[in-house]
Amino acid sequence: MTSAAAPPAQGAPAGSEAEGSGSARDLLLAAASAVMREGDLVDISLSELSLRSGLNSALVKYYFGNKAGLLTALLDRDMAEIVRSVDALVAKDDMLPQDKLRRHISRCIDTYYRYPYLNRLLMRLVRDSDEAEAQRIADKYLRPLSRAYDQLIGEGVRSGVFRPIDPQLFYFTMSGAADRFFSARLVLRHCFGQDSLTEELRDRYREHTVDLIMAGILAH
Amino acid sequence: MTSAAAPPAQGAPAGSEAEGSGSARDLLLAAASAVMREGDLVDISLSELSLRSGLNSALVKYYFGNKAGLLTALLDRDMAEIVRSVDALVAKDDMLPQDKLRRHISRCIDTYYRYPYLNRLLMRLVRDSDEAEAQRIADKYLRPLSRAYDQLIGEGVRSGVFRPIDPQLFYFTMSGAADRFFSARLVLRHCFGQDSLTEELRDRYREHTVDLIMAGILAH
Repeated sequence: MTSAAAPPAQGAPAGSEAEGSGSARDLLLAAASAVMREGDLVDISLSELSLRSGLNSALVKYYFGNKAGLLTALLDRDMAEIVRSVDALVAKDDMLPQDKLRRHISRCIDTYYRYPYLNRLLMRLVRDSDEAEAQRIADKYLRPLSRAYDQLIGEGVRSGVFRPIDPQLFYFTMSGAADRFFSARLVLRHCFGQDSLTEELRDRYREHTVDLIMAGILAH
Repeated sequence: MTSAAAPPAQGAPAGSEAEGSGSARDLLLAAASAVMREGDLVDISLSELSLRSGLNSALVKYYFGNKAGLLTALLDRDMAEIVRSVDALVAKDDMLPQDKLRRHISRCIDTYYRYPYLNRLLMRLVRDSDEAEAQRIADKYLRPLSRAYDQLIGEGVRSGVFRPIDPQLFYFTMSGAADRFFSARLVLRHCFGQDSLTEELRDRYREHTVDLIMAGILAH
């Protein structure tokens, strides 16, 4: 299958409302993202995707080969942003380690609010792919993050601004803190009488997490 | 179905090695737990369970009704321990809030090392159950934890030992920190050349997490 071929004509509902917001490929990714975000799932049925996007599910085969290909493309769409952002932060020579880390934590919370399934999707694809594909995904996303944490945390530890924190363990701390919006609605509904992820909750949780981690990591 | 009836005779392999370590019901739960821990999954196939436990999978129907019943029984087995432990801590009159919290964090890390699927299993059962069953599970596990955090954190905040931390948000922080052993092997394998969860990693991560959260929450 080559992406140079034209998409099957019956797949694209001409003049649909959704069509204005992007290509059919983008629309399928956006629909998959919305379904997984709203359902606290790391999976998608092709029929639901078709219903949600207004597009023929044959387009999944055309653009992504199969469902696994769609999930991988969604990971690429959402995860590349985090890796780019942390690499850019690490490269800044005129910024203090504590300011870099503060900004990184904020951005992670904001990204996971938009894509709560992100860490689970990454781990699912690493777990369920064959060895070569799993290593490709790990090399593209896990290792760059791990290297960036070595630098980001290491820089602060060496300069004495941070306590001696293990960057490898900090990776787990950060991904755990960010991963919380997934299923959070269930806790909110059953314990606190709320029923949705709001921007107000995101902002409170961002502030809470930045405060707690920074206080936890700063020397003195 | 009543648990007073005798189990189907063909289900229990007489004199099997596994039989010595508990009842068939306990063995099924232990096998399900091991499969989910080793596979980083929150699901189990009956054939795998049968293979692993050496027991006839008809026993699942006998003891648990169906797979969902087995998963609920596993949640009950593993989650009750956390709720009991945190309630006992909260009730101690002669212990400082910071000592209670330190011990709670330690225990959470140890419990999730043994049962890395625990939070995900809880959320899966709340998500996939009908409304009444979801509320029952939430009332049994989510609300008691939420109430315990209100007291545990609130006590420290009121006495000025803790910074003003929102107990509701702290619940997310704590569950996120503890939830990290799930899939951790995948990160370890692909980034750090390790291939298993070791007690040494558990101990390092416990120390890291206790240090970071306590430093993050203590006033000054």
